[in-house]
Amino acid sequence: MAEKNLLVGIDIGGTTVKAALISMEGEIISQTAVRTGIMQSEEELAKVAQSILAVAGDDVDRVADVGLAVPGVVSPEDKLTNAPNISLDLEGLMDELAKVFPGCGIWPVNDANAAALGELWKGAGAGSKNLVFITLGTGVGCGIVIDGKIVVGAHGAGGELGHTNVVEDGRQCNCGLKGCLEMYASSRGLVLNYKEHCASLGIEPVKLDHEAHALPIFEAARGGDAAATAAVADLAHYLARALSNVAMTIDPGVFVIGGGMSGAFDLFGPFVREHYVEWSIPACQNTQILPASLGNDAGALGAAYQALTKGRAR
Amino acid sequence: MAEKNLLVGIDIGGTTVKAALISMEGEIISQTAVRTGIMQSEEELAKVAQSILAVAGDDVDRVADVGLAVPGVVSPEDKLTNAPNISLDLEGLMDELAKVFPGCGIWPVNDANAAALGELWKGAGAGSKNLVFITLGTGVGCGIVIDGKIVVGAHGAGGELGHTNVVEDGRQCNCGLKGCLEMYASSRGLVLNYKEHCASLGIEPVKLDHEAHALPIFEAARGGDAAATAAVADLAHYLARALSNVAMTIDPGVFVIGGGMSGAFDLFGPFVREHYVEWSIPACQNTQILPASLGNDAGALGAAYQALTKGRAR
Repeated sequence: MAEKNLLVGIDIGGTTVKAALISMEGEIISQTAVRTGIMQSEEELAKVAQSILAVAGDDVDRVADVGLAVPGVVSPEDKLTNAPNISLDLEGLMDELAKVFPGCGIWPVNDANAAALGELWKGAGAGSKNLVFITLGTGVGCGIVIDGKIVVGAHGAGGELGHTNVVEDGRQCNCGLKGCLEMYASSRGLVLNYKEHCASLGIEPVKLDHEAHALPIFEAARGGDAAATAAVADLAHYLARALSNVAMTIDPGVFVIGGGMSGAFDLFGPFVREHYVEWSIPACQNTQILPASLGNDAGALGAAYQALTKGRAR
Repeated sequence: MAEKNLLVGIDIGGTTVKAALISMEGEIISQTAVRTGIMQSEEELAKVAQSILAVAGDDVDRVADVGLAVPGVVSPEDKLTNAPNISLDLEGLMDELAKVFPGCGIWPVNDANAAALGELWKGAGAGSKNLVFITLGTGVGCGIVIDGKIVVGAHGAGGELGHTNVVEDGRQCNCGLKGCLEMYASSRGLVLNYKEHCASLGIEPVKLDHEAHALPIFEAARGGDAAATAAVADLAHYLARALSNVAMTIDPGVFVIGGGMSGAFDLFGPFVREHYVEWSIPACQNTQILPASLGNDAGALGAAYQALTKGRAR
């Protein structure tokens, strides 16, 4: 019998499924990405499982465990809830994966949590056991790792940092609350910051293609535009406020900032750091705030890490 | 040889040392309290250890592990730091305890963390694995338990919730920061809330003996005094803000409120709950907010629980 010394990490997105064959040391041996339709029918799920199986090639007998990053809350009973951006029958997919990887554990994990584990294992947080990963995109996602394990929370709401309050009675968020971090530090938040400053400074806004189009604002800020600069400063201000409050609650070893907007980390990172130090007690002031380093591989690597630790504990 | 099936839990205070002999199930079998001087000299420490030993009586051979709650940050190397309110040579005391309890593990733990563990084990949080304990006294202390273990943090600053920000550019705190929870929800904070409302409402303040004299304000609020009622409402407002932010970060199963001010929980608790629900995402809205139930026994029980879990993991 082949030695079981490989992992498969899978990252399920809205239109694409990425899968990687990964060593126990976190080295990516091979990877694949396939476009998918709605993942509900047994036929479609079987097809997805087959395309994932392909990544293992001749080494399928060596696969010990399979990790699965999914965009939604994963309940303790492996049910998928709060997943507005995807149509996926998670249990059905797990059944199909169990068929193509017989004898393997199949371990689902929320995708922001997977990215946090990936950065902890092989990315910007490597070497740390306690990490807070924040993803800045259309929304603000977060994965919290304490003692090497994801903080899922009593109701699956661990890491819902995007909905912590940073402005008393502030902007209305889609979640129903007001003044959520997400309304100031996501790409949608940045656009709102920018439009407010344009209005108050009498500056004509640059063209934005949609309500979460951050790139032109970052470019304008780099060019010295006053409203864009102030909008980025707001983002940094409120993100730093949230980070310092998290530091004085669970005191992580490192903060890692990922997501689409982390490409502009060089622009806002130094301001985040400056405010963070200003607003933290001395014990926490030296905590690093780093940009994510794994890019699109974080999800698959983190899913594999989840499989590794869950498999070992089995 | 006697079966090792008992624990000793010790709670070190500024002027009093409490010790209890406790069963593995958390039942207090006997307890003692002794007044102490400055705990620095070998002579004094030996005396303290002897008086602690007395609690075990004839059962000393049955003691498996000894837990020690201390008012300060306990480093991973069992050094005591950030302990402004006590003069204690912790390592010296641990040496003396090792002499009188030969073969036992001696496990120190911060006192707020010990109280959190005590409430988790035998108090208001019994049955939960994830708990946030908040002590409202002259300051605001906090112990966070995730998966049955204290969140110490990368720099020992886990649970420094009293210094999270609740008011942008708010009141100056002794820690150097502004707008800390402690400046609004501790007894000192309550006095400040009250004096502000007295001034703005033109109400003559009741007599307060010191800057942290909360009791007369609670009494005035019970009597319908407008400034005192508003001061208590402020306390509830800012405490709820902090709790909801903690919920959307680590999503505990229960919040437990202890400390000297928790005697007025019936007065402010309902307002905390009301705001907490208003400011939390649905997943966290049903999290219980309960008054502590162990009173002065929480520290010794929690120290024993720390000893139990550390001893088992040894």
